[in-house]
Amino acid sequence: MKSAGLSVREDAIGNIFGRWDGSENSREAIASGSHIDAIPYAGKYDGVVGVLGAIEAIRVLRSSGFKPRRSLEVIMFTSEEPTRFGLGCLGSRALAGQAGFVDVLKKAIDIHNISFAEAAKTAGYFEVHEKLEKVALLKGAYSAFIELHIEQGPTLEKEGIPVGIVTAIAAPASLKVEYKGNGGHAGAVLMPFRNDAGLAAAELALAVEEHVLASGSLDTVGTTGVLELHPGAINSIPREAHLEIDIRDIDEKRRDMVVEKVQQSASKIAINRRVQLENFIIVNQDPPAHSGEEVVEAAVLAAQQLGLQHKLMISRAYHDSLFMARITPMAMIFVPCYRGYSHRLDEYASEEDIVGGVKVLALTLARLSLS
Amino acid sequence: MKSAGLSVREDAIGNIFGRWDGSENSREAIASGSHIDAIPYAGKYDGVVGVLGAIEAIRVLRSSGFKPRRSLEVIMFTSEEPTRFGLGCLGSRALAGQAGFVDVLKKAIDIHNISFAEAAKTAGYFEVHEKLEKVALLKGAYSAFIELHIEQGPTLEKEGIPVGIVTAIAAPASLKVEYKGNGGHAGAVLMPFRNDAGLAAAELALAVEEHVLASGSLDTVGTTGVLELHPGAINSIPREAHLEIDIRDIDEKRRDMVVEKVQQSASKIAINRRVQLENFIIVNQDPPAHSGEEVVEAAVLAAQQLGLQHKLMISRAYHDSLFMARITPMAMIFVPCYRGYSHRLDEYASEEDIVGGVKVLALTLARLSLS
Repeated sequence: MKSAGLSVREDAIGNIFGRWDGSENSREAIASGSHIDAIPYAGKYDGVVGVLGAIEAIRVLRSSGFKPRRSLEVIMFTSEEPTRFGLGCLGSRALAGQAGFVDVLKKAIDIHNISFAEAAKTAGYFEVHEKLEKVALLKGAYSAFIELHIEQGPTLEKEGIPVGIVTAIAAPASLKVEYKGNGGHAGAVLMPFRNDAGLAAAELALAVEEHVLASGSLDTVGTTGVLELHPGAINSIPREAHLEIDIRDIDEKRRDMVVEKVQQSASKIAINRRVQLENFIIVNQDPPAHSGEEVVEAAVLAAQQLGLQHKLMISRAYHDSLFMARITPMAMIFVPCYRGYSHRLDEYASEEDIVGGVKVLALTLARLSLS
Repeated sequence: MKSAGLSVREDAIGNIFGRWDGSENSREAIASGSHIDAIPYAGKYDGVVGVLGAIEAIRVLRSSGFKPRRSLEVIMFTSEEPTRFGLGCLGSRALAGQAGFVDVLKKAIDIHNISFAEAAKTAGYFEVHEKLEKVALLKGAYSAFIELHIEQGPTLEKEGIPVGIVTAIAAPASLKVEYKGNGGHAGAVLMPFRNDAGLAAAELALAVEEHVLASGSLDTVGTTGVLELHPGAINSIPREAHLEIDIRDIDEKRRDMVVEKVQQSASKIAINRRVQLENFIIVNQDPPAHSGEEVVEAAVLAAQQLGLQHKLMISRAYHDSLFMARITPMAMIFVPCYRGYSHRLDEYASEEDIVGGVKVLALTLARLSLS
């Protein structure tokens, strides 16, 4: 960001801010940004397009001779993906000052029992524990936030539309479930004497699908992305099973109903299979976010000005914008990606589409800066 | 073994032999032994009791002034557990000269794509590739083989009987199955457009249980001990699933029928869920083994001589004896273990029961040595 002429600062949790001072520097700035972390075996567009795109948008505005009134900031959020601690959007949650989040983070451990604070220290963030509370920004700290991102769904590509403008972000809930049985030798314990934690987990994964399909709406989705067995040997009955489940909807009540049904199934399965339901933790159950009208409008005008067709749409994926929405009006700009693939090595967005998105972002930032 | 006064040799794959020469050293020896490797998070009795027990039995015979006619050997088999390469009883299979096994072993890779030969080299076995064929013993190389082992099942403890004498070992089949789907983002891909490899795996694990229960016999058991998802992130639809399945029976035909039904289910599930069944590999499908009458008889007489109650029984777990049976008459001596637990940290056998087993083993070896 420095090479783009931005003055850079970093907060205690690792969010990085690059600032281009405007002529009315004391007024709330306009921010744009995203993340650069990724899940294992992911692609290189998710998040990255929104960070490099924001830096590029500012570079273009600067080289065009544009003079911002409100300052413009690029934010590179830390740890958007919930890979290590099961908690998504660490950076933006901390910025948004989510109630209770600091305590959750202080207690968070990874699969190897390493605490968040230890991991942060290893990465060079020594004061994360002491300064975590101070990361939170006040409501209204920014005048607007806008995030450029690949769609991570197939709609724009299918419809041949180069720009999506997001009016709402679907609400995710994350669950962690642990079953425990007696285990034993795969040859020696006869079937009636087993209580197999792995089969309980298999049933629960299928129950998640069943309850999601029964919701009555295409907008409800549910995924068991993590299912781990312990000890995990071919000749050993699984003694422990660990699941991580993601349930989303644009309707919060409908989603919470599915979460409730999954919880009921988890208990029933435990009783039927005589395994212990050791844990059923709702890691987060965030409300959906709605975009700020003025930010959506600025983006729509920018697309129109550029002659780029756009579509107002819902984001079913989870973004830092979901949390930024709590402290500032936000919107998102989507660009098409190949077959809607994301979180895969073959995730791809064309240069043309990314350039289009960056242009819309640049003009949106310019308009908001003058507002 | 050296400290027990045995002359020690090791073969190219890592089986270790300790020999006490008898007065009729040119005749086939009597062997006893087991393994000391373990699955992750296992106990310390499975296998170990049979290696230390055989050494102790020979020490006791020696200190009692016994003079063997046939030589007595202790064998410590390498890699009985299928933990790393999915292949159980590497050492005894190699000794038994199983047809095709050398080729299987030469192609075997672990989960990190490390070949068996590379792993063996890292462990100091540099010539394993070149000399693998030469490890095999001729049929009749030993006059008899007898293995002391914890029961790994609850029968002896429940019935209060200190010694089990094994007349047959149940036949294990091991399967490896891989499903592949499109994966994608857990929020962005709507349910009708998914082909979730993890849910296919969950269904197959439950189908294994269903087919085993439908076999009509208590002796049929089936276990999905390994179920791994890729990429294994909460916000990612599983794109790949890897299962390892163990199916056993004392009736080979009935077991093979279950394997066939599991294979049919694996295909049906793939079709219904529009995932690819990338692999359905029958890693092994060994025939059951029956004990040698004269070895069983020697063990029965030994127990009677010691005034220890015994029970003739079937081994449902998988042992090196299963393979030794192909080249020599064999039997096994079981001692009770706590609740039948095995492959767990709380696996336990009492000193009293182990001592009883070692005594039976010592007298059995003495009798067979004089035969």
